[in-house]
Amino acid sequence: MKAILGGLLMAALVATGAEAALRTEKVEYRHGNAVLAGYLAYDDSMTGRRPGVLVVHEWWGMNDYAKRRAEELARLGYVAFAVDMYGAGKATTDPKEAGRQAEPFRKDRQLMRSRAAAGLDVLRGRPQVDPTRIAAIGYCFGGMVVLELARSGADLKGVASFHGGLATPNPADARNIKGKVLVLHGGDDPFVSPAEVTAFQDEMRKAGVDWQMNIYGGAVHAFTNPDAGRAGIKGVAYNEKADRRSWQAMRAFFDEILRFF
Amino acid sequence: MKAILGGLLMAALVATGAEAALRTEKVEYRHGNAVLAGYLAYDDSMTGRRPGVLVVHEWWGMNDYAKRRAEELARLGYVAFAVDMYGAGKATTDPKEAGRQAEPFRKDRQLMRSRAAAGLDVLRGRPQVDPTRIAAIGYCFGGMVVLELARSGADLKGVASFHGGLATPNPADARNIKGKVLVLHGGDDPFVSPAEVTAFQDEMRKAGVDWQMNIYGGAVHAFTNPDAGRAGIKGVAYNEKADRRSWQAMRAFFDEILRFF
Repeated sequence: MKAILGGLLMAALVATGAEAALRTEKVEYRHGNAVLAGYLAYDDSMTGRRPGVLVVHEWWGMNDYAKRRAEELARLGYVAFAVDMYGAGKATTDPKEAGRQAEPFRKDRQLMRSRAAAGLDVLRGRPQVDPTRIAAIGYCFGGMVVLELARSGADLKGVASFHGGLATPNPADARNIKGKVLVLHGGDDPFVSPAEVTAFQDEMRKAGVDWQMNIYGGAVHAFTNPDAGRAGIKGVAYNEKADRRSWQAMRAFFDEILRFF
Repeated sequence: MKAILGGLLMAALVATGAEAALRTEKVEYRHGNAVLAGYLAYDDSMTGRRPGVLVVHEWWGMNDYAKRRAEELARLGYVAFAVDMYGAGKATTDPKEAGRQAEPFRKDRQLMRSRAAAGLDVLRGRPQVDPTRIAAIGYCFGGMVVLELARSGADLKGVASFHGGLATPNPADARNIKGKVLVLHGGDDPFVSPAEVTAFQDEMRKAGVDWQMNIYGGAVHAFTNPDAGRAGIKGVAYNEKADRRSWQAMRAFFDEILRFF
């Protein structure tokens, strides 16, 4: 009986969520000479300031996947802003082009940090957002970006990296990290070596960061993206279970650090 | 508004849970010549068969900590059975005595498995339990036990190990594992070496097990037990955050594998 009652109440909660008035907006902003096209999503039926979540795209750029994640976060009640790292909302499905776009940021971590920080400023400035309660998530390339943003000392309650790169040329900067760190990692990801995993853990440990790493057995690179296999790259594939579990882990993390409900 | 409504509904759920009629029972059972004293806990206000959860104690034996965990699981709606590995409900606070009690099981994994299986039989036979939906959790020594139980091919939906030992003399037996595996591990646990962690992941990988490992930065051995520091052993300490996070991860895992709600 209790189980059934619980089920009904949960169903009611879900139904309430389904009535959310999702609002999305293209937001143009600048970083130096670059003109960037971000994507804001929030629930227009809510009032008052809410926690914000920055979303940083994969190396493909500002594609529908990043926008979809922003929308999902908005349905959970967060104000989500998918930032544009490359400019003009560029996105590609060509791995060579994606690599070309990502390369300048991989090489220049200060550029990576400041480009992401420009997006963070936009989110923080929105009237719907509680500027003291902001987190950032990122996918693959974007996972590396949110970790660098944290290392820059950005005022974030936490960052979550989904199948992101963990290596940095600036491990000592981990002492600047203000929020908590959650790494969601594929146990069979061939693009993040065991040595890189170990070095990252050592980096967090030495800096006294509040960190967690969830490893999903059987998952490879890009495990959260249903289109991951499209480019036919070995070691890149969707994994529905790991996708679901990592999203759930991120939600629990946000419940803790953003204290929304 | 929506957030407030959600909050009220969640509060109602919690209140419903608080009215649970917790019932506990000492259950005597046998394994060979050993007479064992287990501890059963369930919500007597619930009807119908529910998922069962086996609880395996630390090397201290059948102390109040193991019983408290069984009660917490009962409050979540599970039928929980804290098994007695040493016999006569023995428990100690002396590390030397604990080591003496645990040693025969560490050395003889078949004994470890069959002793735990005797407890599983008791749980499975209870009229409140759905025999097709059973999981097992264990702490420290008990974490090692539930992993061995899984390797024995026991019919379990899953096992969760909290700061347990991961090494086994029988890694090939991982192919017998029927359920899913969740390892909740302290990132600074000096009793489980990085080599042991790596070997365990390889074991799971080779056997194609559905496994996950959550690593909690800053947590050492026995991080879930508020009394962990009592014995004054270096590298053994309570960590409130890791305790809370790992319990939450276990709950999400059970939501998935036991499909209770």
